[in-house]
Amino acid sequence: MAQNIYDDPGFFAGYSRLPRSVEGLDGAAEWPAVRALLPDLAGLRILDLGCGFGWFARWAATAGARQVLGLDLSHSMIARARRDTSAPNVTYAIADLERPELPAAAFDLAYSSLALHYVADFAGLVAAVHRALVPGGRFVFTIEHPIYMAPSAPGWATDAATGRRTWPIDGYGIEGPRRTDWLAEGVIKQHRMLGTTLNTLIGAGFAIRHVEEWSPSDADLAAHPDWAEERERPMFLLVAAER
Amino acid sequence: MAQNIYDDPGFFAGYSRLPRSVEGLDGAAEWPAVRALLPDLAGLRILDLGCGFGWFARWAATAGARQVLGLDLSHSMIARARRDTSAPNVTYAIADLERPELPAAAFDLAYSSLALHYVADFAGLVAAVHRALVPGGRFVFTIEHPIYMAPSAPGWATDAATGRRTWPIDGYGIEGPRRTDWLAEGVIKQHRMLGTTLNTLIGAGFAIRHVEEWSPSDADLAAHPDWAEERERPMFLLVAAER
Repeated sequence: MAQNIYDDPGFFAGYSRLPRSVEGLDGAAEWPAVRALLPDLAGLRILDLGCGFGWFARWAATAGARQVLGLDLSHSMIARARRDTSAPNVTYAIADLERPELPAAAFDLAYSSLALHYVADFAGLVAAVHRALVPGGRFVFTIEHPIYMAPSAPGWATDAATGRRTWPIDGYGIEGPRRTDWLAEGVIKQHRMLGTTLNTLIGAGFAIRHVEEWSPSDADLAAHPDWAEERERPMFLLVAAER
Repeated sequence: MAQNIYDDPGFFAGYSRLPRSVEGLDGAAEWPAVRALLPDLAGLRILDLGCGFGWFARWAATAGARQVLGLDLSHSMIARARRDTSAPNVTYAIADLERPELPAAAFDLAYSSLALHYVADFAGLVAAVHRALVPGGRFVFTIEHPIYMAPSAPGWATDAATGRRTWPIDGYGIEGPRRTDWLAEGVIKQHRMLGTTLNTLIGAGFAIRHVEEWSPSDADLAAHPDWAEERERPMFLLVAAER
C-alpha cells in the first residue's frame, strides 16, 4: 500500500492551508494550463485519481460532466470532499492507486493532479487507467517535475560571488523513492525520469498529445512577480495522452 | 543561416580529436541506446541531418541501407566525409538545416546526432522532415539534453561542506540561444524545453515512440567508472518518432 501521508494530522493541517486547498483550482498556478489540456467535459464520465478535497470533481460537474468518480487513499480527504459536495453525479471512494480496481471502458477522461508521483508502480497504474478508458478517451495529469524531485537535497542555491540563483540537480538518472520533509517529515515520492513517464504511457498504448513543463507566462509574471523563479526550473509536469 | 562553428579552424581541430570523431559511433557513449531505437536499415532510404564525418552514413550502408544522404553545413566535415566514404549509395551535400530543401516522401528514416540543438527554427526543420518522410517513416535523433543546455553557466558545482556534486540549473523555462565556449569561443546552441521539442513533433504530425534521457547502465559503469556523473544529470536526449 502507498504511504498515506495525507492522513498524518500535521500534514493534513498544513495541506489544508495551502492556497490550492483553500481557494481550489484557481489557487493553483498551473490550473489554466491544465484546463487548456482538457476536452469539453459535457457528457463525459470522469475518473479523478487522487481527488483530494474534490475541487476538480465539483468543477467538472458544473462543466457538464455526466459522472465523476473521485478516488483517494486518504480518509480525511474523502470525508471532506463528501462534506463539500452536493452534486448527485459526483461520488468518492477510498482507493490505493498502487492497486486500483477500476471497471473496464467506463470512463472518457482520467484526470489526476499532483498525485501520481506518490505511486511506485506507475506502469501498473497506467495499465489500469488504459483499461478503464474507452478508446479515444483522454488521460490528463500533472506530477511534480522530475527536475524538481530528483535532487538528494532539493532547494535553491545562491552563488556567493555572483548572486546567481540555481536549482542544483543530482541523481536525475537514479529512479526511485525520494524522502523529503514537506508539511511533515519523511514524505516519500517516486522519482522517474520524464522519458520513463512518457515511455510507460506509450508502452501501455497511449498516444502522447502534449507535454508541458509549466513555466509562467509574461501575463502570469505581471500578476504574480514572485513566480519568476518558476522560470528557472520547472516544478510541474503536465501530460495529455489519448487512449 | 545557422552559425557554422564547425568550419572554425580551432573548433574543427578540437572536434576532430573527440573520441566520437576518432573512433566513430563506438566512441559515443550513447550509441548503443541510439542504435536500439533504429529500425532494421535493410533497404531503407536514409537522411542524415548533420552528418559530420559520415560515420553513421557509412555504418548505415554496411547495415543494408539502400541509399544514404548526409547533409551538413560544414564544408570541412563534408570534405572529410567524402574522402572517407567509398560506398556508391552514400552521398553528401552542404545544407543549412535552418532552410532544408528536401524532396517529398523520399526517405524511410531521418536520423540526426547532436546537430538539431544548433537549429533555431526547429518547427521549420521538423515540418520539412515530415514532408521528406514516407508515411510510417521514422525520425530518430539525439540532441543535448535541455538540463545540460539550459544553465547560464553550465558546469558542475561542489558543495564545500558536504562534498555533494550537483549540476546547478537556471533558465530552464527561458528558451532561446545559449552561448558557450566549447572547443571555440561563442558557440551558439538553442535551448528548448523537452516539452517544446516533443510538442513540435506532435504538432507536425509525428507520433512519439520513445524518449530517452541517456544514463549509463550498470554494465556501462562497470566498463567506464568515469561515466558515473552522467547519472547525476542527463547530457543527451534521444527521441524516436514515427510519421
